[in-house]
Parts: sequence; C-alpha cells; structure tokens
Amino acid sequence: MFREKIKVLDCTIRDGGLMNNHNFDHRFVREVYKTVSEAGLDYFEIGYKNSKEFFSPKEYGPWKFCDDEEILKVIEGIDSKTRISVMVDVGRVNLDDIKPKKESPVSMVRVASYVKEIDKAIFYVNHLHEKGYETTINIMAISKDQGPELEEALRQIENESRADVIYIVDSFGALYQETVEHLVKLFKSIIKTKEIGFHGHNHQQLAFGNTIEAIIHNANYMDATMYGIGRAAGNCPMELLVGFLKNPKFDLRPILDLISHEMVPMREKIEWGYVIPYAIAGMMNEHPKAAMAMRKGEKKENYREYYEGLLNAGME
Amino acid sequence: MFREKIKVLDCTIRDGGLMNNHNFDHRFVREVYKTVSEAGLDYFEIGYKNSKEFFSPKEYGPWKFCDDEEILKVIEGIDSKTRISVMVDVGRVNLDDIKPKKESPVSMVRVASYVKEIDKAIFYVNHLHEKGYETTINIMAISKDQGPELEEALRQIENESRADVIYIVDSFGALYQETVEHLVKLFKSIIKTKEIGFHGHNHQQLAFGNTIEAIIHNANYMDATMYGIGRAAGNCPMELLVGFLKNPKFDLRPILDLISHEMVPMREKIEWGYVIPYAIAGMMNEHPKAAMAMRKGEKKENYREYYEGLLNAGME
Repeated sequence: MFREKIKVLDCTIRDGGLMNNHNFDHRFVREVYKTVSEAGLDYFEIGYKNSKEFFSPKEYGPWKFCDDEEILKVIEGIDSKTRISVMVDVGRVNLDDIKPKKESPVSMVRVASYVKEIDKAIFYVNHLHEKGYETTINIMAISKDQGPELEEALRQIENESRADVIYIVDSFGALYQETVEHLVKLFKSIIKTKEIGFHGHNHQQLAFGNTIEAIIHNANYMDATMYGIGRAAGNCPMELLVGFLKNPKFDLRPILDLISHEMVPMREKIEWGYVIPYAIAGMMNEHPKAAMAMRKGEKKENYREYYEGLLNAGME
Repeated sequence: MFREKIKVLDCTIRDGGLMNNHNFDHRFVREVYKTVSEAGLDYFEIGYKNSKEFFSPKEYGPWKFCDDEEILKVIEGIDSKTRISVMVDVGRVNLDDIKPKKESPVSMVRVASYVKEIDKAIFYVNHLHEKGYETTINIMAISKDQGPELEEALRQIENESRADVIYIVDSFGALYQETVEHLVKLFKSIIKTKEIGFHGHNHQQLAFGNTIEAIIHNANYMDATMYGIGRAAGNCPMELLVGFLKNPKFDLRPILDLISHEMVPMREKIEWGYVIPYAIAGMMNEHPKAAMAMRKGEKKENYREYYEGLLNAGME
C-alpha cells in the first residue's frame, strides 16, 4: 500500500503516558524522537497540553503539560523532518497558555472531544488555527456515539471548523472492520474539505486490522505507537503499520532497534497489550478503566467474574 | 454476526502441539475438551494422524499419532456434542492405519496439503470419505501459492474430490484483509458444492481480523485456539471469535475459565503470540522456523539483524 497522502503519527509518548502519568524521562523521549525521525514518520505527539490549573505537576510528569522548554530539551540537536504534535482535551486546557505557532516548537495541536462537546472543540480548533497551528479534531469513544448526534457533529465540523483532519477514535477497542468501513464512509460523505484519520485501540487485537481497513477506505492520517504501547491493550503497533505501508520514505530498522533496546525491557515494567479483561471490555464496548483496576488487584486473572459482572450490569 | 451455518473448530491441541512435539498430558487435553464441549463449539481437533513408520513415538507425544485408544481416554465420561477431528499431512500417514468411521471416535479428517500435492490430497480425501468421515482439504502456505496453479487445484478439487470443506490456510501469517477477501471470492467462484474455511496465523496480529474478513465474505468454517496458542505467533484466539459470533449456542464463560486456569500459566512455559521476529516473518511472507530458532538463542531480541538477513537473502 503506497499512497503518498498517508501520514503517520507516532503517539508513543502521549498515549503510552496514560500508563505512567506522563512520566517518561527525557532520555527515553529523545530516543523515541530520534527513532521517529530516522524512520521518516510524519508526526511525533509528545503529550498533552493540559493546564496546571487543572492538574498538579506533583502528580503528573512533564508530558501532561508539554511546556515548550521541555519539548526543546528533547528535540535539541536531533536532525529531523518530523513535526511535533500535542493533544488538548476539551475543558482541561487554558488556551492562553498556548503561544502563537511561530514562537513554539509545536506544529500541530489535536483536540480530543466527545461528540457532545463538539461545539467547544470547534471553538478550540479555530482559535488554534488562528495562532498558526495545523489542527485536528479527534472524536473519542465513537463506538458509543454513532447515532444522529454524530452526523450533526460532522456537519458542524465541516461547516464551522478550520480543522485539517478529523479522527475516528476507537477509545474502547470495540470496533470491527465493518464498523470502521461504515464510519470512514460516513465521515467522508459529510467531511469534504478535510482529511480523515484513524486511532485504534488493541483490546481485541484489531487495532492494526482496523487501521488497514481505514486506509482501504481512504482515511489518510494514521496513529500508531512503538510496540503498540498505550492505555490498556495499547494502540496499533508502529512496526506493523510501517511494514504494511510501502512508502519508500519510511524505514523499519530504527523502529526495530528501539523495540529491542527500549520497548521490550519497558514491557517488563508497564503492562500493556493483549490481556483478557481488556479484550472483554472491548467486546462489551466498555471503557477499560475497571479492567485496568482489576489488573492491579488480587483477582487479576479472574476473567469470568469480570465478564459476568459486565453482563449483569447491562441487565440492571 | 449470527449465521447459523458458521462452524467453529478448536485446534488448541493440534496446532498448539507444534510447540511441544504434541506432548500435552491427558489431564490438560481433557480440560480443553470439556471446555470446548461446554462452550458449544462444533469440532475439537485433537492432533495429527501421522504414521509411526515416519515419526518415532520416542520423539513425539500421543497427539502426533492420535491412536483411537488415546482419544477414548480423553473423551470418556464427558457429555459432549462436539465432534472429534484429526489432521493428516500428505505423505506422512499410512491410510490403512485409519479404521472406518463407525469403529472410531473420530468424525472428521482434515487433509493438509500444499497446492502442488493436491492430487494426493484428493486421493486421501476420497478414500477417507469412503470410510465414512467428514473430510476437508486445508491448502497450506497459500500466501506463496496464489498463481494459476491455485486456480487449477481448486477446479480439480471441485470436480474430483468428495471433501466437505476447503480451507484457506495462512501458514505464514502474511495475509492482509484485502488478500483474504480476494482468496475467499476466488475460492467461492470455483468451489460451488463445498463450504470454505479459514485458518489464520497471528504473526501480524491479523488472525482474528482476517477471520472476520473471511466470515464477511461467506466462509463458514473457522479455526481458532484457546488464548491463541499455536505455532510461532499462534492462531486466532477462540475467546475473541466467540465474543464476535452472536450464535446463542456458544458460551464464552468456560473458555474464560480455561484461560485463567490453564492457558495463562502455560504461556509462562511455552512462548507463543506477538513476538517481533514472527511479525517480521509475516511481513516478509516467510516460514517462521528461522524466527523460532532465533527465539531459542542468545540473539533472541536482535530484530534488526534478523530483518536485514531476510532483506539480503531476497537480493542474492
């Protein structure tokens, strides 16, 4: 599959940071940035641009806030064509904290939003566009929100927002490829002036397959992470995506080195990937937070009880 | 997805046996058979029916040979509607060793064959059909064999064989969903009087997604294993497949119990699943045996060297 318009975004540090309160040390973040640059990937998402009014720097590491001086420490001296991205959550950022693009190392700001908050997301995006950034709207938890509200939100986005890319985000790892096909076609039927992106979660081992499905139906912006690190079951593994894409600008070798030297040892300390309670959460279209809590307790392998709990909860 | 015609075959013991020379003990095999029966699965493939003329019982466990008395020890006293299946490899079985169906606990014999050996496979299948068995032909390594020889083999199978089901076998975990769609459509365009099956391998985390793809295009016989156990990266995980299929006759709960009590501890002793060299073998459409050997050596995490070796081998 070689389509020049396809752009790959690495969100290892941003989505992986959900597993360690955004506390990756600068050495590791530099290693990932070097790898992403050598591999020829398009974007490197380094974290969230949350406001310190809402979250304490005592509880969270630097990639929850992404101060420009922290970003500069990471990228300094590394030759790179990869652009820096940060994510903002609706309601958790003070827009005045974000300088104009020309004063910042950041190129793209992605706004994560639920369907019901789309008006705010559009306001954010237009503000950030005015400041000179590339912008996206990432519609989270879409597997729970496929009714007429979604279509209305898409029409608003098309008509009112200056976003460059609109992402389908399978937060719960609940989508199958038929649903991905349906959603990409729905998005493309309404969104005519912007690109479509896809961000998968791997609860049911479908993040890569669903990413391919989105590509087949002409989505062009794809998220992935090194060795699939990310919240709960993690994301689409970058190594598989780069192995699939035939664009000669990408190089798999630095990615393999990073996995050998950094990701495999890290997986011994942080649990992500295929774990049955996450698979069950995906099947049941549920947020994985209960499963994540369960994995930290004594009943971490008691899958049947967890499954039956979800079944019963649905009947109450 | 509820289509009554869909049949699910558990090949935990047969494909998993490739990882331990078919040496699962009777207690474990009984536990899996009990689980498969309680879960309402259609077939339980217990091993290979290889001849002791070709393989030594000193080197291989009972599920390399599947003597009827060994099978009877497993199933005795367990209430079950699940049918027993065994696999034969072309050239590794003495057909005289296989009794008529009415004298055996086995219901189905699956014949594994490469495209080039299809004449022998047809001979085997017709012989076994005469003895009263349900039969299938499982076309192995199909990612290497998609030329006109495949179409000719399919025409021969349709015209000359008594097989009930013809399987697409992605031995190298190299298929993407476009290729699965293409193959199922090709098979169905030629094979009009038999069902189509799919057996995936999980090298690129696509076994489940490809199985769904085969179902979408009307293949009806699906292989899977408990917690995805199988050679190298393993197979389609049964728990995901049963979670996807909506047929009320299936029950996920006994499968979850088996994974908690048996499969998770077993995974500590036998390595299967997502491991980078298997992913590379899948991308490169190569047999995983070199990767499996590498995982037993000192350079088990040296992914780049393995990848570059395959790249260079292709240029010699």
